[in-house]
Amino acid sequence: MNIEKMVEIGLLFEQYKELLTDKQREIVSLYYEEDYSLGEISENLNVSRQGVYDALKRSEKILKDYENKLHLVRKIQEQEKITKTIIDKIVDIKQDLLQNRDCANLIPKVENIEDICREMLK
Amino acid sequence: MNIEKMVEIGLLFEQYKELLTDKQREIVSLYYEEDYSLGEISENLNVSRQGVYDALKRSEKILKDYENKLHLVRKIQEQEKITKTIIDKIVDIKQDLLQNRDCANLIPKVENIEDICREMLK
Repeated sequence: MNIEKMVEIGLLFEQYKELLTDKQREIVSLYYEEDYSLGEISENLNVSRQGVYDALKRSEKILKDYENKLHLVRKIQEQEKITKTIIDKIVDIKQDLLQNRDCANLIPKVENIEDICREMLK
Repeated sequence: MNIEKMVEIGLLFEQYKELLTDKQREIVSLYYEEDYSLGEISENLNVSRQGVYDALKRSEKILKDYENKLHLVRKIQEQEKITKTIIDKIVDIKQDLLQNRDCANLIPKVENIEDICREMLK
């Protein structure tokens, strides 16, 4: 499977999985997260290979349709980019504080903000 | 109308309006954003008063069901709370820098982070 597609569907699935049916969720998870083949899923779930394929295609369409309307994946990626920018700027300030020790008392305060930002990226 | 409900539906509508039909979106907007009465909406859209009422109830249920699955409003509120916390901490650091002028060169850098955070709240 194409790696870009795997990442794309993985990100969409993470955000919108609750909007799929239990069966769709199970099939997408087995295929995209657990790396089962269509044949293996078919055997495990006792669904025809074509049935598994159709469920995957249908689920992918549902996930993409929701992203086209809500843009959650895009927004989260933008948010992460901003958070990383803030971390870079905080690290830069920390470097300055370490070099000029006159305001060393500020280092813990700056590090506290860095911690909060890193927590947001988890 | 109860103000808490207005705020609640307003927040949900902001996040999930794209998941309503055009007609549902129009009715929710007129009622919750433009403060039209059921009677006025009925007259304007040439739909029975009961039809407007049913569309509102149905739309509210759809919006709430999506929030129960995706928790977007809750997540955005949590995100805003964290951003406000960072701003408070940045303002505190700025105060320290203004009082101890040894590191005054850091003030623009700190203000830059504050600006980025305030932009996120818009």
